[in-house]
Amino acid sequence: MAVAQVIIELKKGITDPEGTNTKKALNLLGWDVRGVKSGKIFEIELSQDVSEEQAMVQVEAMCKRLLANPVIQTYEIRMIEG
Amino acid sequence: MAVAQVIIELKKGITDPEGTNTKKALNLLGWDVRGVKSGKIFEIELSQDVSEEQAMVQVEAMCKRLLANPVIQTYEIRMIEG
Repeated sequence: MAVAQVIIELKKGITDPEGTNTKKALNLLGWDVRGVKSGKIFEIELSQDVSEEQAMVQVEAMCKRLLANPVIQTYEIRMIEG
Repeated sequence: MAVAQVIIELKKGITDPEGTNTKKALNLLGWDVRGVKSGKIFEIELSQDVSEEQAMVQVEAMCKRLLANPVIQTYEIRMIEG
């Protein structure tokens, strides 16, 4: 069983209203924060006994096809269980 | 400058419709996925020159106060730049 963690963030230059407003709220609460970037995370449990390399390839295909929008988002894949 | 990555996920047992539907969609697209958990991620750039320990304490306070809902969510803090 392989578990992959996929972190999806907005590309640089893409407006991130959630991040901007979170930063404002943290500043209003008294914290000295310079910037906040928001993003999504998916933990994907693959049911086959696949190798780490195969899992990487599969999860990358999932990102391209469904999970991320390559026009405005970047994705990063980490295997958290081999 | 310290940058902290905060990963916010739902606690076990809390319904995760986004995860469930992402799993369904991945299955429909032909991938053999056993489960998907969805969550949020924040990258917080602290503007003071704080030590890693101080940054941890600050970011944990931010999670408790604003970023996470401790009733249904868990958070995990990683310092990605000391």
